[in-house]
Amino acid sequence: MVKHTLAKNIDKHLNETVTLKGWVYNIRKSGKIWFLIFRDGTEFIQCVILKDEVSSEVFDLKNTLTQESSLAIEGVVQKAPRQKFGYEILVKNIKVMQIAEEYPISLKEHGIEFLLDNRHLWLRSKKQNAILRIRHEIIKASRNFFDDRDFTLIDSPMFTPNASEGTTTLFKTKYFDQDAYLTQSGQLYSEAGIMGFNKTYCFGPIFRAEKSKTRRHLTEFWMIEPEMAFYDINDNMDLAEEFVRYIVEQVLKNRKKELEILERDTSKLEKITLPFPRITYDEAVKILQDNGRDFKWGDDFGAPDETLITKKFDTPIMIHHWPAETKAFYMKRDENDDKFVLGVDMIAPEGYGEIIGGSQREEDIDLLLSRIKKENLSEEMYNWYIDLRRYGSVPHSGFGLGLERTVSWICGNQHIREAIPWPRTITRLKP
Amino acid sequence: MVKHTLAKNIDKHLNETVTLKGWVYNIRKSGKIWFLIFRDGTEFIQCVILKDEVSSEVFDLKNTLTQESSLAIEGVVQKAPRQKFGYEILVKNIKVMQIAEEYPISLKEHGIEFLLDNRHLWLRSKKQNAILRIRHEIIKASRNFFDDRDFTLIDSPMFTPNASEGTTTLFKTKYFDQDAYLTQSGQLYSEAGIMGFNKTYCFGPIFRAEKSKTRRHLTEFWMIEPEMAFYDINDNMDLAEEFVRYIVEQVLKNRKKELEILERDTSKLEKITLPFPRITYDEAVKILQDNGRDFKWGDDFGAPDETLITKKFDTPIMIHHWPAETKAFYMKRDENDDKFVLGVDMIAPEGYGEIIGGSQREEDIDLLLSRIKKENLSEEMYNWYIDLRRYGSVPHSGFGLGLERTVSWICGNQHIREAIPWPRTITRLKP
Repeated sequence: MVKHTLAKNIDKHLNETVTLKGWVYNIRKSGKIWFLIFRDGTEFIQCVILKDEVSSEVFDLKNTLTQESSLAIEGVVQKAPRQKFGYEILVKNIKVMQIAEEYPISLKEHGIEFLLDNRHLWLRSKKQNAILRIRHEIIKASRNFFDDRDFTLIDSPMFTPNASEGTTTLFKTKYFDQDAYLTQSGQLYSEAGIMGFNKTYCFGPIFRAEKSKTRRHLTEFWMIEPEMAFYDINDNMDLAEEFVRYIVEQVLKNRKKELEILERDTSKLEKITLPFPRITYDEAVKILQDNGRDFKWGDDFGAPDETLITKKFDTPIMIHHWPAETKAFYMKRDENDDKFVLGVDMIAPEGYGEIIGGSQREEDIDLLLSRIKKENLSEEMYNWYIDLRRYGSVPHSGFGLGLERTVSWICGNQHIREAIPWPRTITRLKP
Repeated sequence: MVKHTLAKNIDKHLNETVTLKGWVYNIRKSGKIWFLIFRDGTEFIQCVILKDEVSSEVFDLKNTLTQESSLAIEGVVQKAPRQKFGYEILVKNIKVMQIAEEYPISLKEHGIEFLLDNRHLWLRSKKQNAILRIRHEIIKASRNFFDDRDFTLIDSPMFTPNASEGTTTLFKTKYFDQDAYLTQSGQLYSEAGIMGFNKTYCFGPIFRAEKSKTRRHLTEFWMIEPEMAFYDINDNMDLAEEFVRYIVEQVLKNRKKELEILERDTSKLEKITLPFPRITYDEAVKILQDNGRDFKWGDDFGAPDETLITKKFDTPIMIHHWPAETKAFYMKRDENDDKFVLGVDMIAPEGYGEIIGGSQREEDIDLLLSRIKKENLSEEMYNWYIDLRRYGSVPHSGFGLGLERTVSWICGNQHIREAIPWPRTITRLKP
């Protein structure tokens, strides 16, 4: 057989003979001709088998090939304007690698739990394939965005002796003779990093023992966390909106085909332009109350609150100036009104909820110590972190973007479980 | 003060007034002039303070500024051919943000344990800074290499119900009502991924409860693992050597300054050209025996063995065709002699040891099942993995490159602990 070509590259071989290697997606028969919809993980291609063009053994494969059987196909690349990809293969020969057993996932509908049990096979389907290619694009765009802006990648550790986001959702593990916790955020470590590198980001898995079974939660997800020396809360918001706009733009530009497979309404994504509206927590509360919701000042927003607040905006919005009591100890107090901290949440449109949480960090050692004391945190445990305010403290800010929520929003997915190759939830640890 | 500029960018502002924000690295005094070596995490710059050019308050800062004090400096960018960076700042004004307490890490020598206890501060030092910038470059090069070659990033899960590399070095964690294990390799998951995407890679943290305190081991490290459908062991070795050469080339091209800070002998890196020598396990054993080592056929190579085998080569070498008993159950048997498997290890030069482990995978379901049975693994646990041989099995291969060992080798580091921002070893979980 001639040299192996990836299906996505056959447009470069018009009228040439190529070999494709991959799997049977579907077969349609019609007398002296049959069609094999072939996939190799890079593209779906129609292959035409004519009785007069192949041996009788090859022609009779129409009766033995099953869905997902593996094979090598030799044939000539032809233009096929009516096919989505624009090209098809006129088959000359087929070599079967394996006739697949009866494939559990047919091209019909299946229940979500069945599909998740078969995630190792479900990944082959068109829609899952498209979602994860968009995920790849978002990751690539994120890294390029920060690499191009003088950030250094400083990955935070997975094993930590302390918790940054409270202790109720921590995964604990035996670490030789000690206890260790799996990281819930790289932020505290990034704050050390910027004192050496100016601007850093970390991008790795994050673990939260979330007991909630909502469609927004995973126990294991990926987060990208930039941290910047000499940035205040406004600089932070400028960067966050520019970053999110850039991601959307890159996906629109490079993943048209995948968005089409997902039937995503891209007009909604094209409306993601700068600037994003910035409202204070108090203003957000007012929107809720004006719309007749019974919301108590000082509470955090729930999913229905977020949906209501964002409803009248086309772009994500940023809610800043939060009541200090609702937020973590490391956030900087507003110098004009210390009831508030300089925190910011970015809420995606279309009901996708919070995708970014960030803040200016407290750089004053006395204020930081008093917060640690008040929240009964161990000063000894945080001693290294407090050091950052002893040796050349500077104003600084940062935020974290939840990857899977962002993927879900951009793909227009109903459930975050499809935004990660191998979802882990309270009830799911397999495969 | 005028607009904030990063130190690395001042060459674009010759003879202009700029504001730099950062930290005091060192101070030298000399009568009516003093010099402040300033760093902001992007560059080290000499700032010149002349008695006649600044207020007396600013001039007198020479007596109060301490190492790592944070400040903003306003001054004019001048050429300074004798300075490493080629530019210096003639200071007009200094605003102090914080006078640092006495900094624990002086510019003199410290013990390694002290430095690791103060990793959050040690990151600021020149050498650590250079190593981690090279790490960033290697990560970026790795991702670009695979992105440019039609690979899709399909990250594997961190929580797994089963183990791929044996059970003695697994970290176990409570996962709600179940037990979970932290991943030791993404490979088995990647094998599912390629059936949907053709070529994939995963790149994330890996956990091994290594009890060995050698300078090559971490409990938490990062691994990049490409996996390719329709690749045999030779294709696999072709890709591996091209990949490693590419990384070295990118670092040589883009990180000259950092290699210079580390005093790396770059002539050694410039010798990393293709092809890398490929020898069989048997040939490697013969090298050992010819050199008078008492080595038993069937054993794995230890660090001194690896150093001896690689000694006469300038590039990494690949050792392939391993005795089946020494290697994991998923490796494909050599069809000509089933005493051997089609596994490959790549050993770095200069005594840096194994940086890549890979193989062609067993695609035959009966052979795979017999290996699983023979090794007393749970067939039920691996059922999803065996599925990949039921539904369109294809020849395939892959490998994993250990990031920190590669960083150590390219940097010429003595110890792998410096190749990761926050090292974790059997005795170290902090900071």
